[in-house]
Amino acid sequence: MLKNKISVCLSPELIHLYDVDAKNVIVTDIFRATSCMVTAFAHGVNGIIPVATIEECKKWQQSGLLAAAEREAKMVDGFDLDNSPFSYMSSNIKGKKIAVTTTNGTLSISKVKDKAHEVSIGAFLNLRAAADYHKNQDRDLIILCAGWKGNPSAEDSLFAGALIEELFAYYSLSDDSALMAHSIFLMARNNMLSYLQNASHLKRLKGLGIEKDIEFCMSPNLYDVVPVLKDNILVLK
Amino acid sequence: MLKNKISVCLSPELIHLYDVDAKNVIVTDIFRATSCMVTAFAHGVNGIIPVATIEECKKWQQSGLLAAAEREAKMVDGFDLDNSPFSYMSSNIKGKKIAVTTTNGTLSISKVKDKAHEVSIGAFLNLRAAADYHKNQDRDLIILCAGWKGNPSAEDSLFAGALIEELFAYYSLSDDSALMAHSIFLMARNNMLSYLQNASHLKRLKGLGIEKDIEFCMSPNLYDVVPVLKDNILVLK
Repeated sequence: MLKNKISVCLSPELIHLYDVDAKNVIVTDIFRATSCMVTAFAHGVNGIIPVATIEECKKWQQSGLLAAAEREAKMVDGFDLDNSPFSYMSSNIKGKKIAVTTTNGTLSISKVKDKAHEVSIGAFLNLRAAADYHKNQDRDLIILCAGWKGNPSAEDSLFAGALIEELFAYYSLSDDSALMAHSIFLMARNNMLSYLQNASHLKRLKGLGIEKDIEFCMSPNLYDVVPVLKDNILVLK
Repeated sequence: MLKNKISVCLSPELIHLYDVDAKNVIVTDIFRATSCMVTAFAHGVNGIIPVATIEECKKWQQSGLLAAAEREAKMVDGFDLDNSPFSYMSSNIKGKKIAVTTTNGTLSISKVKDKAHEVSIGAFLNLRAAADYHKNQDRDLIILCAGWKGNPSAEDSLFAGALIEELFAYYSLSDDSALMAHSIFLMARNNMLSYLQNASHLKRLKGLGIEKDIEFCMSPNLYDVVPVLKDNILVLK
């Protein structure tokens, strides 16, 4: 049987090169948008509305939703939640809907949501759950790495490689970015945090004193949830 | 002393994210544009005029120059030279100027030539020579990988990693793409051809029966030449 194909888009700036129509797309933004989303669902959030702009996020907040806005890796003033996964472990969010906008992660979702067959959310925190879900999808898969302002990032590429490793028997690799992401993961899998010491995004984030977040975001398989986009709202599959 | 920085742009589609002004840029398109250029200079060519379009290339041919045009990895009808490095080993090209247009390589040059301090040409064939040249440049360096129609390619990324390995003591890495290209090279350095067996561009090229070209293009340090762009013509440094 011919296998479905898996490809990796290393930056949302390259997504126009991919034929997204009728494909599944899993979006990842390890530091920290998709790690926060997965954590939120694991702690009982009812739905997450990813929006591209701060203005849109503010409107949802004014209509009564909780709202989280991040730019330049920092929380925007006037919103309810920051972009640390630890903020999403509170019982206050249980059963609620949250509107979210981030520099890279929600932008990536907005670039594929109208064309893809289904958009799902991946992070190390739900790696195995996301892999198990996609093992049973008879459809080509694109892993869209949010990166940092258009630039490929090491942590998102590592996640792409980790997911490919989980799905290796189920899909064939369709592009060189998938081959390279898989190689990098195989090389760094036993020391990912130390590998990332040289990554530019990590250096940028370290200035913010969020080492605890970083270590947490690189922890695999803590949560058995797979958020997917339905009618512009992320919900649990 | 603070080291100059080296960064890697994995695709010309991402070059707008880089501050090219006053930087050195080395363009690489291993299969096969920059490998052909290096081979041509090693065999006595006097200058290469990289042009973006077939029409422009045709005009140079009509004005009396030799001309080479490639699209979809094949020679365009009506031109003098194809895009195999073996075509550039002829004594017929000695002392002559050649106009060249290719799918990815010359497009990459055209995207940086007006802004960069200097554009040079890199391939495995002139790896050591290019490295030695840039060891002595007191300026940040961007390695621009031509890729394949905007997609990152494994062979160009391997070259970027190989050049970083040569320059590691002289520059600091400034982005995650540089970190990742270096990692991939370190992993694959002893079996690059077998690593590339899974690369999509190689699969594409294999249909054209050019295995000999591919093996040749992956041979390091055959030629001691560094082509650089001066007034829109590539000449020997």
